[in-house]
Amino acid sequence: MKLGRMRREGPDGEEARLVAVLPEAGQAIDLAAAERLRLERRGASPAAARRLAAALFPGSMAAAIAGGEAFLEGVARILDGHYGDAVLPLDGLRWLPAVDPPVMRDCLAFEEHLVNSFGRLNLRVPDIFYEIPIYYKGNPTSLIAHEEEVPWPHYTRNMDYELELGFVVGRSGRNLTPEEARACLFGVTIFNDFSARDIQNREMAGHLGPAKGKDFGTAVGPWITTVDELDLEGGLAMVARINGEEWSRGSSAAMMWRPEEILAYISKGETLQPGELIGSGTVGRGCGLELGRQLQPGDVVELEVSGIGVLRNRLGQPEPPGWEPTPRQRSA
Amino acid sequence: MKLGRMRREGPDGEEARLVAVLPEAGQAIDLAAAERLRLERRGASPAAARRLAAALFPGSMAAAIAGGEAFLEGVARILDGHYGDAVLPLDGLRWLPAVDPPVMRDCLAFEEHLVNSFGRLNLRVPDIFYEIPIYYKGNPTSLIAHEEEVPWPHYTRNMDYELELGFVVGRSGRNLTPEEARACLFGVTIFNDFSARDIQNREMAGHLGPAKGKDFGTAVGPWITTVDELDLEGGLAMVARINGEEWSRGSSAAMMWRPEEILAYISKGETLQPGELIGSGTVGRGCGLELGRQLQPGDVVELEVSGIGVLRNRLGQPEPPGWEPTPRQRSA
Repeated sequence: MKLGRMRREGPDGEEARLVAVLPEAGQAIDLAAAERLRLERRGASPAAARRLAAALFPGSMAAAIAGGEAFLEGVARILDGHYGDAVLPLDGLRWLPAVDPPVMRDCLAFEEHLVNSFGRLNLRVPDIFYEIPIYYKGNPTSLIAHEEEVPWPHYTRNMDYELELGFVVGRSGRNLTPEEARACLFGVTIFNDFSARDIQNREMAGHLGPAKGKDFGTAVGPWITTVDELDLEGGLAMVARINGEEWSRGSSAAMMWRPEEILAYISKGETLQPGELIGSGTVGRGCGLELGRQLQPGDVVELEVSGIGVLRNRLGQPEPPGWEPTPRQRSA
Repeated sequence: MKLGRMRREGPDGEEARLVAVLPEAGQAIDLAAAERLRLERRGASPAAARRLAAALFPGSMAAAIAGGEAFLEGVARILDGHYGDAVLPLDGLRWLPAVDPPVMRDCLAFEEHLVNSFGRLNLRVPDIFYEIPIYYKGNPTSLIAHEEEVPWPHYTRNMDYELELGFVVGRSGRNLTPEEARACLFGVTIFNDFSARDIQNREMAGHLGPAKGKDFGTAVGPWITTVDELDLEGGLAMVARINGEEWSRGSSAAMMWRPEEILAYISKGETLQPGELIGSGTVGRGCGLELGRQLQPGDVVELEVSGIGVLRNRLGQPEPPGWEPTPRQRSA
């Protein structure tokens, strides 16, 4: 299944709606609408049908996934039935980020990206990357949808993309083995970890990880493909195009850590949450930094992953200059 | 006002409830219950009173704060009226983390802590700490409440506390000046950034910031004191006691960056969210690392901040050993 989120106008303004996507047919099914109509056909009153449909298919993908098997069974029941009266054309759909995660992490599971990125600074990749699947934590409140414009913060002149997979967690778990963690992987989406390299380099000298360099916007979508439809072991083809020109090409088969190892590692001493999102890290040669190239305002970045689709975003114009902190003096 | 969250048993299991706290009286007011009874006294049906009260005072503090002025006005209306029938004794209350933030950051705004911590590694504090208020992002899904036991992950033998303030954001904002950001500060809580120093040191060699070293549990509470009740400029006294013995003492007056500067900095190119939580960083000599001391299983850590209260947590026993990743070989 392919599952996403969109905006739709209602009497109280825009609301988030979950959709099942049929890319070949060029269609999306509004899941709450389809479920409401299905329930009405089976004798529910309009008010009860609306209440039940909203509980199973809320606007939050994380909340829907937390419904467990009831959620996927509900989608399957709709896809097997008469959903024609809840169909929307994909063309012109206004997307939301495919998931609204309670926490977001981003790994660096592709060795080639590590070697190339540290190599640009004449540094050797630190040993720790080969010992454990380390990651930084992103800002889950600034995600960007498919076809949404990427804000260009005023503090950067060096904008980059990063071609990654996004792993979506399906169920809770703690202190798992990789075998146990495999059952916690719900699906995979495309993850564009837009990066402001100038401020990122400055702030990472403090050893606290990226913040302003990444947190202005991470694109996630266009939708989630559930794991049953993907050949993760065989590898997914990953491609990046800037203004139609191919800049990057790779495969998820090159990942140094398997998704279930990453999930198991994260679950050590912590509880995985339904709907949380974990970036794979950038595939080798999957960003401008590795290629000696930069993005410009107005550029269109397309990331394509086999079995999922194409995530497309245009970069906005730089925001006007803002307040800057006054540097402090060392006391000693 | 002092506002917190507690667990209360209902017909469908435990649920989160917001409380207004009156520490001198040893009382907490269940806000949804008080509002429901107030509405009933004013002619609402029981069902309508329950619906309206739950909308104004949901179990999520972040969702309540997002209600804006309506939320604080609602609390004030209850405190000014007859709330006796919704009062609970503080003694025996089962707390929840004071806030459930959509994103959590932690700064290092106290220079003395920086000098002492880097000094332990024979390093000079990097310049960037004096240039901008940098921070790492924590795990908002593993917060720990007042009086809740702190899990001791199996992968650490070196456990520490960190004595910090937690700033809670009240309203949305983007690209703010410090003057504008001041209006976005809702209140302050106590923030104990429990740290597993052994794994923290290992993973921070990868430049991605702390993860396993911090993400197993951050204690937040016992409640939030709203900014109108605090003298942030004058400074709040901060004390840590381990098993009743004072280990740390400091004042928020020593912060190198003012709270409104930190909020303004975070709002650069990003949108502040109601209910988000920002740690101040550890006050000077506010952790065992600076003192050459470590915590042990079963230790009781109390953090006290003037104008707020005491946040108390006991450390649990180490979890049993778990799966460990197999190190990878460098390809070159």
